[in-house]
Amino acid sequence: MQIKSSFNKIDNVVISGGTHGNEATGVYLIEEWEKDCSFLKRNSFETDFFCSNPRAVDLNLRYTETDLNRCFLDKDLEDESAVSYEELLAYKIKNNLKKNYAGKTTLLVDMHTTTSNMGINIMCDDEAPNLLLAAMVKHRLPEVHVYCIKKSDRTDSCLRSSGTYGIGIEVGPIPQGILRHDVVESMRKAVAAVLDIAHEINTGGADETPFSIEYFSHIAEVAYPDGPFGDAMIHKDLEGRDYEILHPGDNIFYGAECGNIQYEGKEEVHPVFINEAAYYEKGLAFSTVKKEHREFKLLK
Amino acid sequence: MQIKSSFNKIDNVVISGGTHGNEATGVYLIEEWEKDCSFLKRNSFETDFFCSNPRAVDLNLRYTETDLNRCFLDKDLEDESAVSYEELLAYKIKNNLKKNYAGKTTLLVDMHTTTSNMGINIMCDDEAPNLLLAAMVKHRLPEVHVYCIKKSDRTDSCLRSSGTYGIGIEVGPIPQGILRHDVVESMRKAVAAVLDIAHEINTGGADETPFSIEYFSHIAEVAYPDGPFGDAMIHKDLEGRDYEILHPGDNIFYGAECGNIQYEGKEEVHPVFINEAAYYEKGLAFSTVKKEHREFKLLK
Repeated sequence: MQIKSSFNKIDNVVISGGTHGNEATGVYLIEEWEKDCSFLKRNSFETDFFCSNPRAVDLNLRYTETDLNRCFLDKDLEDESAVSYEELLAYKIKNNLKKNYAGKTTLLVDMHTTTSNMGINIMCDDEAPNLLLAAMVKHRLPEVHVYCIKKSDRTDSCLRSSGTYGIGIEVGPIPQGILRHDVVESMRKAVAAVLDIAHEINTGGADETPFSIEYFSHIAEVAYPDGPFGDAMIHKDLEGRDYEILHPGDNIFYGAECGNIQYEGKEEVHPVFINEAAYYEKGLAFSTVKKEHREFKLLK
Repeated sequence: MQIKSSFNKIDNVVISGGTHGNEATGVYLIEEWEKDCSFLKRNSFETDFFCSNPRAVDLNLRYTETDLNRCFLDKDLEDESAVSYEELLAYKIKNNLKKNYAGKTTLLVDMHTTTSNMGINIMCDDEAPNLLLAAMVKHRLPEVHVYCIKKSDRTDSCLRSSGTYGIGIEVGPIPQGILRHDVVESMRKAVAAVLDIAHEINTGGADETPFSIEYFSHIAEVAYPDGPFGDAMIHKDLEGRDYEILHPGDNIFYGAECGNIQYEGKEEVHPVFINEAAYYEKGLAFSTVKKEHREFKLLK
């Protein structure tokens, strides 16, 4: 079945970085664009950008109290008792977006990095315009992975859900708190592709011929067998093999006490976010995704 | 000229991890050995181990107030006004070591990791027994790099200087706060080699035939041209090329504003600690070392 969608005319692209304060790449680009934003200029829309959690950036921490990128669910924003630092920050960001873009169609692009060996990823929910936009990025940049998560409270809690349309760009591997020239270039390339596509959609320049691409849809998170900071770690056979095939019986964990532990799933999956530093505190070792192959079509 | 040394009989090997609280590999091994330390047992000496900064480990931070591994200089320990958390911790660690090993010959081994692509490194000062010990490790494990820093207040401020003999083991690349199975194995292999060599020295089993190896001696630290967190980052041509040759004129920095910046040194050097996360706050981009080649001999 074809995935097809049209788009409203996009009035504003809003790019955020520093949603996780120790992911330096987006923060660097925001600072770069504050000095010279000609890179972002397209004639058919305005492009704005902002550093979403400057306090966490200053502290070189993912967040100060709670993960900002899980605070944007409407019912949480409306919860009057939700007054942690990041909950307050999310409330203010959301209201600023509403005020600044009242009546406008916005595309929100949130820039992230991962310690996992995942390359360039477009993160999106499975709403047709978002998934189509992600697919159009991959169609233009074949090295990109499209990582689709079913629309849910989980996806709606992300900053990117605050736009009319929203995608995340996730680049890795890179340690937290570090800048890498190649990762900055990858992020810039992905941002440029998104801007070019938005402009072509707006101006009728985008190709309406159906095209087929593969993408990955989220299945599940896989926890360490003994909780966070236990004996088990990612097995060296799995380390760095994001998006490769994981077969039942393959080694996934190793520990001095637990020895080698194998994947007990019933079918082949693709592991992602393997050994992501930010997920240790949650006890999450990696996620699994399923490869999909679909035809996409942009409607007028 | 030959570098030669004898050793006193080593009574105790003391292994520390967690001197930097976000270097998880050493912390993991200390916890492993707390459950089963048979891996460390050699008949000619006792092996002890300890987690040196458990508070920083709990917080997943390099340190809480100041770098513990710069606090061990005698004159700083004697400074009655030095009462930051890590200065107090260093004072107590040093006194514990004095009390527990009074009259004993100790070999202190401090386990570290780096975000730089440096492989397995034995860090030492240029005191003959320490450099010879490091050379013997490389002679046994050719993949090891020996990284020698001239004995100075800098080397004496390190925890490893608190033993009769002292070396550091530094393994990378690995992000801060992360465990990698392969890095745990590298660290274990290096620790085992040090223990085996100490045992052979003690029991007369070590080969006294002179041997030649290459090692690297520290020249200088190279700062970012615009201070910490400025526009310049490590150029992609340099990233990950630790221990390779850096020629005058090679690209070392890139920034959106500053463009490409070249190495202006007069001679070839070898860059190390390239893009080490912990050195951002000091504004240090990498260090340079010089390749040396010498003959070593263990004296009876």
